[in-house]
Amino acid sequence: MDPRTYVEEHASAFFEDLKEWLAIPSISADPARRDDVRKSAEWLAARLSATGFPVTEIWETGTPGEADPDDPESAGQPAVFAEWPAASPGAPTVLVYGHHDVQPVDPLAEWHHPPFEPVEQDGQILARGASDDKGQVLFHALGVSASLAASGRGAPPVSLKLLIEGEEESGSPHFADLLRRERDRLGCDLIVVSDTTMWSRDVPSMCIGMRGLAEAQLDVTGPSTDLHSGSFGGAVPNPVQALTQLLAGLHDETGRVTLPRFYDRVLPLSDEERGMFARLPFDEKAWLAEAGDSRAAAGEAGFSTLERIWARPTAEINGLWGGHTGPGTKTIIPREAHAKLSFRLVADQDPADVIAALQEYVAGHTSPGVEAKVTFFGPGVRPSHSPVDSPAVQAARRALGRAFGRDILFTGEGGSGPEADLGDILGAPLVFVAVGLDGDRIHAPNEKVDMDLLLKGAEAAAYLWQELADAAPGADTATAPAAGREPRP
Amino acid sequence: MDPRTYVEEHASAFFEDLKEWLAIPSISADPARRDDVRKSAEWLAARLSATGFPVTEIWETGTPGEADPDDPESAGQPAVFAEWPAASPGAPTVLVYGHHDVQPVDPLAEWHHPPFEPVEQDGQILARGASDDKGQVLFHALGVSASLAASGRGAPPVSLKLLIEGEEESGSPHFADLLRRERDRLGCDLIVVSDTTMWSRDVPSMCIGMRGLAEAQLDVTGPSTDLHSGSFGGAVPNPVQALTQLLAGLHDETGRVTLPRFYDRVLPLSDEERGMFARLPFDEKAWLAEAGDSRAAAGEAGFSTLERIWARPTAEINGLWGGHTGPGTKTIIPREAHAKLSFRLVADQDPADVIAALQEYVAGHTSPGVEAKVTFFGPGVRPSHSPVDSPAVQAARRALGRAFGRDILFTGEGGSGPEADLGDILGAPLVFVAVGLDGDRIHAPNEKVDMDLLLKGAEAAAYLWQELADAAPGADTATAPAAGREPRP
Repeated sequence: MDPRTYVEEHASAFFEDLKEWLAIPSISADPARRDDVRKSAEWLAARLSATGFPVTEIWETGTPGEADPDDPESAGQPAVFAEWPAASPGAPTVLVYGHHDVQPVDPLAEWHHPPFEPVEQDGQILARGASDDKGQVLFHALGVSASLAASGRGAPPVSLKLLIEGEEESGSPHFADLLRRERDRLGCDLIVVSDTTMWSRDVPSMCIGMRGLAEAQLDVTGPSTDLHSGSFGGAVPNPVQALTQLLAGLHDETGRVTLPRFYDRVLPLSDEERGMFARLPFDEKAWLAEAGDSRAAAGEAGFSTLERIWARPTAEINGLWGGHTGPGTKTIIPREAHAKLSFRLVADQDPADVIAALQEYVAGHTSPGVEAKVTFFGPGVRPSHSPVDSPAVQAARRALGRAFGRDILFTGEGGSGPEADLGDILGAPLVFVAVGLDGDRIHAPNEKVDMDLLLKGAEAAAYLWQELADAAPGADTATAPAAGREPRP
Repeated sequence: MDPRTYVEEHASAFFEDLKEWLAIPSISADPARRDDVRKSAEWLAARLSATGFPVTEIWETGTPGEADPDDPESAGQPAVFAEWPAASPGAPTVLVYGHHDVQPVDPLAEWHHPPFEPVEQDGQILARGASDDKGQVLFHALGVSASLAASGRGAPPVSLKLLIEGEEESGSPHFADLLRRERDRLGCDLIVVSDTTMWSRDVPSMCIGMRGLAEAQLDVTGPSTDLHSGSFGGAVPNPVQALTQLLAGLHDETGRVTLPRFYDRVLPLSDEERGMFARLPFDEKAWLAEAGDSRAAAGEAGFSTLERIWARPTAEINGLWGGHTGPGTKTIIPREAHAKLSFRLVADQDPADVIAALQEYVAGHTSPGVEAKVTFFGPGVRPSHSPVDSPAVQAARRALGRAFGRDILFTGEGGSGPEADLGDILGAPLVFVAVGLDGDRIHAPNEKVDMDLLLKGAEAAAYLWQELADAAPGADTATAPAAGREPRP
């Protein structure tokens, strides 16, 4: 039976299951919902077991008793791990990442239906977590069943591992530790992330990169005390002035970042990537409205808005302060001034390198008579990039294309979640196979997910496992699934 | 009898009187001391009356009941006005300015003697207000008596008016109103200010200018809300970045202020002024230590430190804030950013003109996509300048030179008190005749005044009245005392 037929025949049972899961209020940020997060993990483990995964485990995270010394389980919240070895030896191993915890639901009054009483309406399921991320996790259960139905074998064409986190909406505080602890069991050739969005219902797409992040604080100090500007103004250095000069100098007049070597490791956008971004029906006016009614786009000369947010690095001042900030006036030369800085990074930039360059820039450009210090809020987040010509991206693009019956375009993400840790710690490339939409109202009242798109996701997963198996070295075709990366220690 | 002999013979009575006055704790900033401020005014009026002033009055200030509606006198605090017409008609009229209120005394524990129990020690009188400003006010009573003794006439050689304020240490909140209200009675050809310092005990000097002040707030706004720097960073304008560019651009690389027309009305330092400043034994290392251990002098190229603080205008950033200013990080593009700015001005700059130039600069240099607004904390303070070649400065210089038996050098003041209002509202030039020292610990514990210097001040005042009378148009010499200014409406 072909995957599409299987998915369609099992759709209503799949949605009933999903609604059952969505009824569990697994809000990881709410201490009162810890039991529900655990219930959610147990529900998923049971469901994956019923699907046929021979291994399903609940993985504890964090240090037991961390939050409440009297409660040994009060530390991190549980993840779900499932594993299903491939039907044939030599098949590649794929790790699917998602999360089963959900966002808080405030303001509750704005929900048209209770957030944990899922309803179907106009082809959507409305409930907290429907799109972010339970719907997108569960389509993998349907997808692997469809894959078995298509192959007629008792195991999937690739060795499948699922790691479904329980703390993503709380900032994944224990996730990197978990990855390091379980690195051996999580070993894989490829990581499939199902926690992002497509461009739109009519324009299916894949994310091909996420920007990384380096953050720092800049402290400029001058006199040992605030000075009277009448007695000293104009004759001693002003740390606030020195700070503004350092900050204003971070960009040149074309909007490029001036730090030494900043662009040295930036992978240039390929013509294909630029072409694919340009094919997206981007409405800049609507985007500016969403950007807090920003009056105009701005940024590095020579790049489009989408290129700027997805594929170009930045330096941003996130905040600054110094001297008198209250009402009225105070005629002082302030003793110190401070700023918070963040840099969005693209492959292959490294957060520590960028902060080192910032330190070098600051050392070379601080006015005489004041001192400036850079503090790195390390380790930062490394950017990820899935080259469009990599076998894994090509396989995923074919799989999605078969499911949607359309050409699959490419997008990016301007920021990173825990995905960067996955790639870094496990040393495998990432591909983003997801069917959420920007209009799904994730993190907001009335979250929803498009039911058709979830079925397309399941179908695409079934195709993808077969595509990857066919492309593996042991298979008929000669292409490796993807170039592995060295794991990060 | 020559003034010196008179002053020496009456010195101990003068110091007894001064100590009596210093025992009245006339702290204008302390509401509990309102009665003492009034007592101080009454003491002074009685003392001036006893000296011979035919007119002595207590002038109320502010709106009655302003502070406490049940107490009709709870508004401003009283000033003392005294007047003594000249012996000869046609003599010039001189207004002496000082104040009889004093600073608070915290931290009390650091005083070696109680602040309102004056003691004599090593040629100093120690008490709050000894130098700032009761000692300097009272030497005028001794001075005018010495002048009468010298001339043998029953009235001074100039028409003398004294205006001794009671709110100077509280920021003179009602002083400008008082000057406007009493402008007719305060009419004068020259204003003598006795509330500043000399260079040192061995280097007597006169202040020849005070910098003015213009203050403003700069507000830069961008998106209607803070934006996520992952989603939008690098593609929309950042108001904090725009602010730093505006602020960093306020100075060029030589330290000059870049506002349009900023230097157009700046009176250049004359060679004589530069030469006189250069003759002062200035210890830059010691000055830097006092400047909060500043590591180096800095400022407009081509000028010495003393020239920079006394005779050159500045732009200072007094404070700034925007976006995330707490611990840790927040990856936002802030919606707004703000700064407090002040400009020290020198003659003949005008505060309103400078703020208009700031507005023009900001309008022309704000990055596209953000809005910037300048708010003027008006009306500002106009700078004052007493040209060294003016007859009034020359007369004062001769008078001080006779008293001290030394050449009198020139200094400036980097900021202004209510003196600027005096010159502006009364339309008369200012000369600064004062014998305080920077080491007098004014505004600090253990304030003191040098007793010899107070006597020199009295002697100089006696000489000065005669010098001015001699130089007046009706006198033998042909020089006018000083070019009058048009009063400001």
